[in-house]
Amino acid sequence: MKPNYFFFLILFTMSFLTGMAQVKDNKPSLGKFALAIHGGSGNIDKMKLSVEEQKAYRAVLDSALKVGYEVLKTGGSSLLAVEKVIMVLEDSPLFNAGKGSVLCNDGTIEMDAAIMNGKTLDVGAVAGVRRIKNPISAAKLILSKSKSVFLYGSGAEDFVVQQGMELVDTSYFFTEQRRRQLERVKLEEGGMQLDHDSGDYGKKTNETDEKFGTVGCVALDQAGNLAAGTSTGGLVNKKYHRIGDSPLIGAGTYAENGVCAVSCTGKGEDFIKHVVAYDIASRIKYGHLSLQAAVSQTIQLKLKSSKGRGGCIAIDKNGNIVFNFTTSGMFRGSVDVNGKFHTAIYR
Amino acid sequence: MKPNYFFFLILFTMSFLTGMAQVKDNKPSLGKFALAIHGGSGNIDKMKLSVEEQKAYRAVLDSALKVGYEVLKTGGSSLLAVEKVIMVLEDSPLFNAGKGSVLCNDGTIEMDAAIMNGKTLDVGAVAGVRRIKNPISAAKLILSKSKSVFLYGSGAEDFVVQQGMELVDTSYFFTEQRRRQLERVKLEEGGMQLDHDSGDYGKKTNETDEKFGTVGCVALDQAGNLAAGTSTGGLVNKKYHRIGDSPLIGAGTYAENGVCAVSCTGKGEDFIKHVVAYDIASRIKYGHLSLQAAVSQTIQLKLKSSKGRGGCIAIDKNGNIVFNFTTSGMFRGSVDVNGKFHTAIYR
Repeated sequence: MKPNYFFFLILFTMSFLTGMAQVKDNKPSLGKFALAIHGGSGNIDKMKLSVEEQKAYRAVLDSALKVGYEVLKTGGSSLLAVEKVIMVLEDSPLFNAGKGSVLCNDGTIEMDAAIMNGKTLDVGAVAGVRRIKNPISAAKLILSKSKSVFLYGSGAEDFVVQQGMELVDTSYFFTEQRRRQLERVKLEEGGMQLDHDSGDYGKKTNETDEKFGTVGCVALDQAGNLAAGTSTGGLVNKKYHRIGDSPLIGAGTYAENGVCAVSCTGKGEDFIKHVVAYDIASRIKYGHLSLQAAVSQTIQLKLKSSKGRGGCIAIDKNGNIVFNFTTSGMFRGSVDVNGKFHTAIYR
Repeated sequence: MKPNYFFFLILFTMSFLTGMAQVKDNKPSLGKFALAIHGGSGNIDKMKLSVEEQKAYRAVLDSALKVGYEVLKTGGSSLLAVEKVIMVLEDSPLFNAGKGSVLCNDGTIEMDAAIMNGKTLDVGAVAGVRRIKNPISAAKLILSKSKSVFLYGSGAEDFVVQQGMELVDTSYFFTEQRRRQLERVKLEEGGMQLDHDSGDYGKKTNETDEKFGTVGCVALDQAGNLAAGTSTGGLVNKKYHRIGDSPLIGAGTYAENGVCAVSCTGKGEDFIKHVVAYDIASRIKYGHLSLQAAVSQTIQLKLKSSKGRGGCIAIDKNGNIVFNFTTSGMFRGSVDVNGKFHTAIYR
């Protein structure tokens, strides 16, 4: 065992020196800011989106980015930017979050969301909510006003109402497209719960045209603070009050100043067992990897090796942005530290 | 930046060599097995337990250990041992899980549990269940039979019934002691949600006599497989369908072969934001720490520095067992690799 101790001693010393070097080289520059967003991953090439459909998706992604850019440019917090950006995506019927969420097996809609402040590690999360227009705002309200951090269903609704938030009728969230999607999935799957969004366009549902419509945002503000948020309607035809990874801190959502902010999209069960968001953060914190290497190892090696499907967006303390997914596409966008806007759908 | 790359290169090489050395030195010996349990942490000295009360607690801990020991000794899996052990603790009215769970603000009981198989990383979890006699068994059923891994409330109950499990009447879980506890807490706190168990003995409730009664078990079986499970009634006087850390994989519960198995107890919100169970695993996996060092850094440095309260039990691939808590005591016990039984309450 002696040689082992020797290795550990050297390892520890090197880690310490590396850490010191990092602190010196990479402290966040005041004034630098950036953000990234996703509107879900999937084998989007199989959706055969028309040029108009692609334009519509990218227009919403662009609006969301602009909202976040304005917040950050004027000195607003990354936490506020994440909330405001996700609200835009929740309000759009195109994405599986807020309005336009997928339907459960019983025809209802149950939404999950989480938000995390990388500066304080404060978190807020909701699951199974049915009448909250913007689940991400409920999560943020819980983060700032509740002693608990994770509230479910009618309990979460009671809390936000007590805090002055108004509920909406459940009919607000429903779209005709999602009703047809549920009918089609039930017919095809014989009533089985499908483990993905399954696309919206009336085509045959199988693993090759799955789409996970979760939305998320990660941001670095001018004060060097990171934040992350994720919001979703979950899986189409889901049963038994299933909770996915999105509202679970460490699985679908994580942010820590000096390390990274991460928001995931994909088959939630895979992300829960691999604790994906915090696995990425840990590889940076304890394994001293770069953001890009950490994300790549978690998504392309760990997640993919166990047939996990989906991806994530991530940002580090210097505003470096990484998109990574095991599917053929991810609705995504970013504003980098130079103020350059970018949106994309395919790989 | 050049020196930094150099450091990383050396670091990577050393990590690789250390990893190789570990694989050679520390592969699990077939036949070795061990387990550890907890019945919650807290400032137990302030509960002024009588000798009889201490005996009663230790007797249940002993029975639970014996059940686990028998499973493991006869070649049973760590997953089965964890389930069977936790069932004993759930069935005892002394602990805050299953029968004898604490009451919510509205007088109901809502229980959470999770279990994880370190061999496959398969997980199962429930939250907010009210009629499942052994929530840990529901979690295990979800692990083995459900496509989803985390089910809430009546949905979880519907699933287990469909799988042939019988429900019990909600009255089964109630004890007179817990009714009195809720009344007292409501009077003292003016109806505020208390963030801990608060002790059961009619004494003044404050931070110095808090007790978190969650139960948990970690085990290594003869095949070298690790497993972890946690079950709880949550916080006394809890509101809004609060979910704590116990059912959240990575926060209150985690197991991974070759790394460790962890079960936590304490103020759940602290454990969620610090992703405690997976933070310990990550320090071992990516930071190459020993189990003892990893647990100590997570609990005594990270958790304690942010005033987090509680503790954990953990076991590694060699059957090394660690107990660690920031409170004055933790109901706990273990059977080590030499078959030696041990129970304790105070520090």
